Order: sequence, then C-alpha cells, then structure tokens
Amino acid sequence: MSATLDPVLNDIDRDLDNSLERLFAWLRIASISTDPAYAGQCREAAAWLAGNLTALGFETSVEETSLHPVVLAHRPKANAPHVLFYGHYDVQPVDPLNLWHTPPFEPRIAEENGSKRIVARGASDDKGQVMTFVEACRAHLAMNGDLPVGVTILVEGAEENGSQGVPEWVAQNRERLKADVALVCDTGMWDRQTPQITTSLRGLAYFEVKVTCADRDLHSGFFGGAAANPIHVLSKILAALHDEDGRVTLPGFYEGVREPPAELLEQWRSLGLTAENFLGPIGLKEPAGERGRLPIELIQSRPACDVNGIIGGYTGEGTKTVIASQASAKVSFRLVDDQDPEQLARTFEAFVRERVPADCSVEVICYKGSRAVALPYDMPQLDAAKRALAEEWGREAVAVGAGGSIPIVGDFKRILGLDTLLIGFGLDDDRIHSPNEKYELSSFHKGTRSWARILQALADARG
Amino acid sequence: MSATLDPVLNDIDRDLDNSLERLFAWLRIASISTDPAYAGQCREAAAWLAGNLTALGFETSVEETSLHPVVLAHRPKANAPHVLFYGHYDVQPVDPLNLWHTPPFEPRIAEENGSKRIVARGASDDKGQVMTFVEACRAHLAMNGDLPVGVTILVEGAEENGSQGVPEWVAQNRERLKADVALVCDTGMWDRQTPQITTSLRGLAYFEVKVTCADRDLHSGFFGGAAANPIHVLSKILAALHDEDGRVTLPGFYEGVREPPAELLEQWRSLGLTAENFLGPIGLKEPAGERGRLPIELIQSRPACDVNGIIGGYTGEGTKTVIASQASAKVSFRLVDDQDPEQLARTFEAFVRERVPADCSVEVICYKGSRAVALPYDMPQLDAAKRALAEEWGREAVAVGAGGSIPIVGDFKRILGLDTLLIGFGLDDDRIHSPNEKYELSSFHKGTRSWARILQALADARG
Repeated sequence: MSATLDPVLNDIDRDLDNSLERLFAWLRIASISTDPAYAGQCREAAAWLAGNLTALGFETSVEETSLHPVVLAHRPKANAPHVLFYGHYDVQPVDPLNLWHTPPFEPRIAEENGSKRIVARGASDDKGQVMTFVEACRAHLAMNGDLPVGVTILVEGAEENGSQGVPEWVAQNRERLKADVALVCDTGMWDRQTPQITTSLRGLAYFEVKVTCADRDLHSGFFGGAAANPIHVLSKILAALHDEDGRVTLPGFYEGVREPPAELLEQWRSLGLTAENFLGPIGLKEPAGERGRLPIELIQSRPACDVNGIIGGYTGEGTKTVIASQASAKVSFRLVDDQDPEQLARTFEAFVRERVPADCSVEVICYKGSRAVALPYDMPQLDAAKRALAEEWGREAVAVGAGGSIPIVGDFKRILGLDTLLIGFGLDDDRIHSPNEKYELSSFHKGTRSWARILQALADARG
Repeated sequence: MSATLDPVLNDIDRDLDNSLERLFAWLRIASISTDPAYAGQCREAAAWLAGNLTALGFETSVEETSLHPVVLAHRPKANAPHVLFYGHYDVQPVDPLNLWHTPPFEPRIAEENGSKRIVARGASDDKGQVMTFVEACRAHLAMNGDLPVGVTILVEGAEENGSQGVPEWVAQNRERLKADVALVCDTGMWDRQTPQITTSLRGLAYFEVKVTCADRDLHSGFFGGAAANPIHVLSKILAALHDEDGRVTLPGFYEGVREPPAELLEQWRSLGLTAENFLGPIGLKEPAGERGRLPIELIQSRPACDVNGIIGGYTGEGTKTVIASQASAKVSFRLVDDQDPEQLARTFEAFVRERVPADCSVEVICYKGSRAVALPYDMPQLDAAKRALAEEWGREAVAVGAGGSIPIVGDFKRILGLDTLLIGFGLDDDRIHSPNEKYELSSFHKGTRSWARILQALADARG
C-alpha cells in the first residue's frame, strides 16, 4: 500500500461516473478520419481533448499536420523519468449503420451477460483507452497536485487512415517529444481477467485496385460473352493471391519472414489457444490461412493478406443485367519481421497489372505502409509496468505479440529512438471496426487504475 | 403510295412534338420494377398507359399479377388478322446516379454528334419503343377512324425483373390474348440506317450468391490469416467459373448447345462485324469470351456467364482494416439452343456449395430463368414486315439473332402457340441499363412510321 497511490485509486473509484460523462462527451463527436466529410468533426474531437487537458493543468496545443491535427500536451517534472503517451482521437467508419442497435455516436452503458459496457464507435478504439490514461493523470493531479513522472501526451487524428501526416510531424517536433519511454494504450488484454503487454506488432500495407474495362456499363444480353467484365478480371486477381494451402502467392512475399523460435512455439502451445477457442466465439472452426499452423502463430508471427472490401456492378435488390465498366477492391497485407512494405507495393502492383487484359486498365492506389515492430524484452520499464498490472489485476501480465498494426510505434523507434510499452484494456469481442463497438466498464475503470499504478511504478523504479 | 397509309404517315410527322410530350409524361414516372420502393410508381406507369389507350378507343384494363400489374387493351376487327403487341412499362434501376448528366426521370431532347435524342431512363428500354406502336395506332385511328388489323396490347411491368407473375397471368388469360401473331418492340436496329427483325433470343438464368463466414465483421489485424474471408471465398468461386480459354467450367454447361450452321457463319463473316467494329465503340478491342469465335457468334449463338454485381466489406473512401462477415455477387448466364435454366440452377448451386469452407455458409438465390427462343424463318408475317420496313428505311431489314433475353417470347409460344415478330428501333449505343440512356429521335419518329406501315402490310397480306 502506498500513501501516495491509495488516495489516487480511491479518487478514481469515487469519480467513475464523472469520468464516464467526460468520455461520453468525447464519444459524441463523430471523428471519422478516413472520410473527408468528417474533417470538421476530427478538429472538434481534437479541440475537446485539448480543452480537457488544459483544464487538468497540461500546457496544451492543437497542431496542424497534412491531414487532421494532433493534440500535444506537456507536464514536465524535474528529476523524474519522462513518458510520452500516445493515442488517437479518430475512429473507424460506422457502416453498415443498419447493424448498430443504437446510434454509434450516442454512447450508452449496456448490460449484457452480466457485464456493463460502454457502447459507441470509439469506445474501445481508441477514445475509451486514451481516457484511461487521462483520467489516471486527473486523479494523481487531484489528490497530489502533481504527477509521479513527467508526461507528454500526443493524441493524433489519422491512425485509422495510416497515420497520414503524423510521422512527418513527429520528425519536425523531435525536441518536444523527448522522453525515456513511449506508452501506447491501443491494444488488448489477454482475456477478461489477465492483463497483457504487447511486445510485437505486425506491419501493414494497404492497397486499392480499380479495374476498368468498357468505357460504360453494358447490357449483358448484348455484350455478354464478348466484352471484358471487370468483376471477372478482379476476381481472377484476388483468387490468385492465395494458393490451395493458404499461402500468399506474390513472388518473394515470404522473404524476410522468420520461423518463430522453438521455445516460443512451445510457450504458445502451452497457452491452449486452439482453433476452436480462438475462432469459436466468432462462429468459425477452421483456421483459414496457411495450413498446419496454430491460430496464435498465424496472427502473431505470420504475414497475411485480406481483401477488405469489393464493389462493382449492380448491388441493389433484385436483378440487373449489366456488365459494369469498373470494379474495385481494397487489399491489405499484414507484415512480420523484415518484410518491406515498399518492396511489397512494387510486387503487388506488378502482380495485378500482369493479370489485366491489354485493352482494359487498372489503377493501383498504395496507402501508407508500416513495417512490423518488436520490442526488446529487456526494457527497464517493462518490469515496473508488469508489477503495477499484477497489483491491479491480481494476475501476471502476459507478454505477447499482436496481429494488428500501430504504425506510429515504428516511427517512435526510428525517429525518436524510443521503445514503446503497449498496454491496453480492449477485449477480443470489443467489435472495434464493427457495428456495436463496446468497451467493458471494467476495462475503463481498472484500466484507469492500472495507469495510475504504472505512472507511480515508473517513478519508483527510477527512484 | 397508299391512299389509306399516306395520311397516317403525314399525321405522324405533323404530330411528332405532341407524341414526344406524351412519351415524356410517361418517362417521368420512375417505374423501377426490381426495387420494391418503386412499386407505387409502377402502378402509376400502368395507369398512365391505360388512360392513354382508353382515350384512343381501346377497351382497356389494368390487371393484377403476383408482382406489378399488366395493362391490357383490345380493339378487335372483323375479317382481319389480329395481332398481340407486347412491351413493358418498367425500367432498370438508375444507379450509379452520379454518372447521369441530367436526372434520369426528367426526359429531355439532347443533340449530340448532329443527332437529336431522347435522354431518360426508359427512353429506349422500353417506353419509347412501346410508344412507337401506340402512336402508330393513334395516327391510324385519327385519320381512318379504325386500325388496319385487330389489335390487343399487353404491356407488363416486371420485364426487368424476370417478368415475375406474367407467364402465370398469360396462362390464366389465354382466351383474351388470342391472335395470329405477336409483335414485340424491345429490340434494336442493325445500325442507324438498317432495320432489323430479330429471329432468335438467348435465354437467361440469374442468381445471387451470398457467402457468410464469421458471424460479425472482424478486425483484419487481429484475425487476418486465421479467419475465413467471404470475399476470398467468393472470388475463388467467381474466378473458377471460366477457364483460361474463356469457356464456362460448370459441368455439362455446353450440353444442348449447337454449333451454328456453316452458311450462317459465312453470312456472319460477310457482315464484316470485326472485334474492332463491335468493341471499339465501347472502348475495348479483344473479345473476352470463348477464344477463336467471332463477336457476333459469341453474342448470338454461344452461351455466356457474367457477374453482374459484387459487394462486400468496406467500400467507402480510404481504408478500413476489416474482414467482412458477408459478401455477395449477382451472376447470370445467357443460354442458347436447348440449355435448360432449371438444370443449370442445380449445377450452379452445387458448383458454388462445394467451394465454400465447411464452417462458412452460402445462400444461392435463383431468380426466374428463361430458355432461348428461335423463330421460324417461314413465318407468313415476316415477309410483310420486311417489305414495310424496307419502304420506310430504304434498306432491306436484316434478320438475325440477338444476345439479350425477352422471356415472354418463349411463354407466348409455349402458352399461346404464338410466334413473335421482334422489331425494334434501339441502337447499340442507347445505354439501356446504363446512365444517360437515350433513344434516337429518328428511332422514335421512323419507328412510329414503321409500325403504321407494318400494321397496314399485315392487313394487306391477308387481303
């Protein structure tokens, strides 16, 4: 028990309803970063957070990037470690809107299977997670008038859009982002009771492919059998991306991919995460990727390719006998180890182009890519964070890799020389990127308490 | 020159502007049959035509079917042949709406490349074509107080939706549809100057395939490489429908397909319809279907398979790292000779099901199918129609097969024992089923004159 920490934890418990009100106010702002129509709401979400952090006593500014602004807040502390906390205020699009049980930007507390949860777009990814850190700071400041460590908070607005403009901004603001370690709250727990520190992340390369055949839509009765059909061309391309064993067929795709060490595989096997455990909750049974590998291996240490969207021709009710002029698909790759997104972009574009008939055309749009990152197991801050999490949750934190990508983590290492502690309180069933996104109330509450403990632990470890 | 016919043709010329006003009034009604949201507009389009035909002196009724109503109008004539004219008042959907230069249901006259044209959804398919026949009747009645032959007009409202409910209605109304020949105005000219009588039509089988994998949308970072992706499953199915030579791979698909006779092939070759001629105007060069066949052969005497639409996952702007729960495609087949749409439905569904992983599911919706039809070359009315068309256009009419399907033609033969003269004035570039559909003013004007002549010729041939 700590004389400094206990009042902070008590204050977090006592002020929970108010904390939720603050989070809800932020969740009501539809800050969708990938759709230009919501650029105003992104600015609004940045402004709201800036107002909140200013009130807490941070020196705060909203700063322009090439896309959406970032929020930067400082509270230095002499003779103490300094942390750089990162999160994002932007959220995923909400379609298909008709599958939401309540409007995505009208947050509410729902009770399901005996657990209370916050339901809204952004509840888990990432506004709810960001607010666990902010509220931990609030409680420290309220009880002690100070924070245990120096803190810089950087919250960006384009994470769901490849963090466009953010690495450039980081590179231009190196001096203002100096810290001993970066903290990111955008990952998940091992399970409902077990905290997790994420020690590696897959990279990402995201493309859009637009195939154009005839210069107009055609009647399939008049032209069917004679005119090229862009959906056929696109289907052939997409079908060719995987072989019968689920391996990606792009030439050289697996160069730079390493097999996990035997002891890691052994550790994974001991976790008992079978295909049934992993896929059962989402209604599936069989791992769909490379044959003969564990699900955890597939999502942590193997690259993958997924078509994220496709559209072409008539998609309304009933029938229309049309041959479309154009069809398009969004295709992304998860990268591991030394796979290079720039090399992949060249290989992918060539792969696509050689499968398009000479009298048709194709556009390959390359969105931002990121390499995989892996954190050093001997980070001095890792043990402090593990201890703090164990105290809060009553269980050891699991240190594992994760399948998703947080591009900024690689940028922090490359540009700022910083390693990042990835600690988050999301759950696998949070439906981030899906309708009815939620964040467990326990994630929010105990997540806030966890950060309060971690900030203290980082200070104590130095002392 | 005919004392009876000349005043009729003159009246058609004189009344052209009023004829257009009548057509425009009909075109303003958004009678989209495939979308239930437009059921009211379908009834409205039926009512408008019924009002028009009643005013002309037809005994007219609007009659219910299982989907949209049909308009039935009678004007018998003793000691004269009787014709059954068929057309449809329903139109195709209008998406993508943003590609229309002016609103689809605000008809206008546009001038392009020196030709005047009527621009609106339904201008060519099929309201404009139907009105050529109605206006020809109007002119005969105005000048002579009578028609040269007995006429029954049947205009349905579900042609773009597989004529749902219409064959059943026809079967229940055999007695009221008695005639010597059926006339259909829903086909095209050979070219801008050359009339055409269509002597065969391909059949149609139309399906929708919906693949479901996980029971919710997933984050592709967490699940990519481990969870089944319905767009992958669907792409593999669609890509497998054609082999490298453009042939459809469904087992037994080509059973019942006959090679065209050598003399017909020779005739086609003599028409000089090269791939360049045929595909150049729509921005293509290479026939995309079965290798080594003429374009005219591909669209007239060969079956074909086209994916008419596909959708799944995120299709908005920018990126979303999602693995969709569901993806779907609309797939149709054009049938020739003895291909059986019911047999095809069984084969297609089996083909699809065996390509869906065991832990995923698929729904195959089978829309109405129709067999191909071919008309007897020795129809007595064929010569009379050919003579009438030659007099109007100054050129012999070309008698050929067509790629599209008009299911009712097979029903007329099967249920009523009637052969059908398919005479229409559409052009290949009319953009039916596409944005900016148009009908040449010359098609409308000379089409009306053509029907006036054909009605007279059918009477004279009998006399």
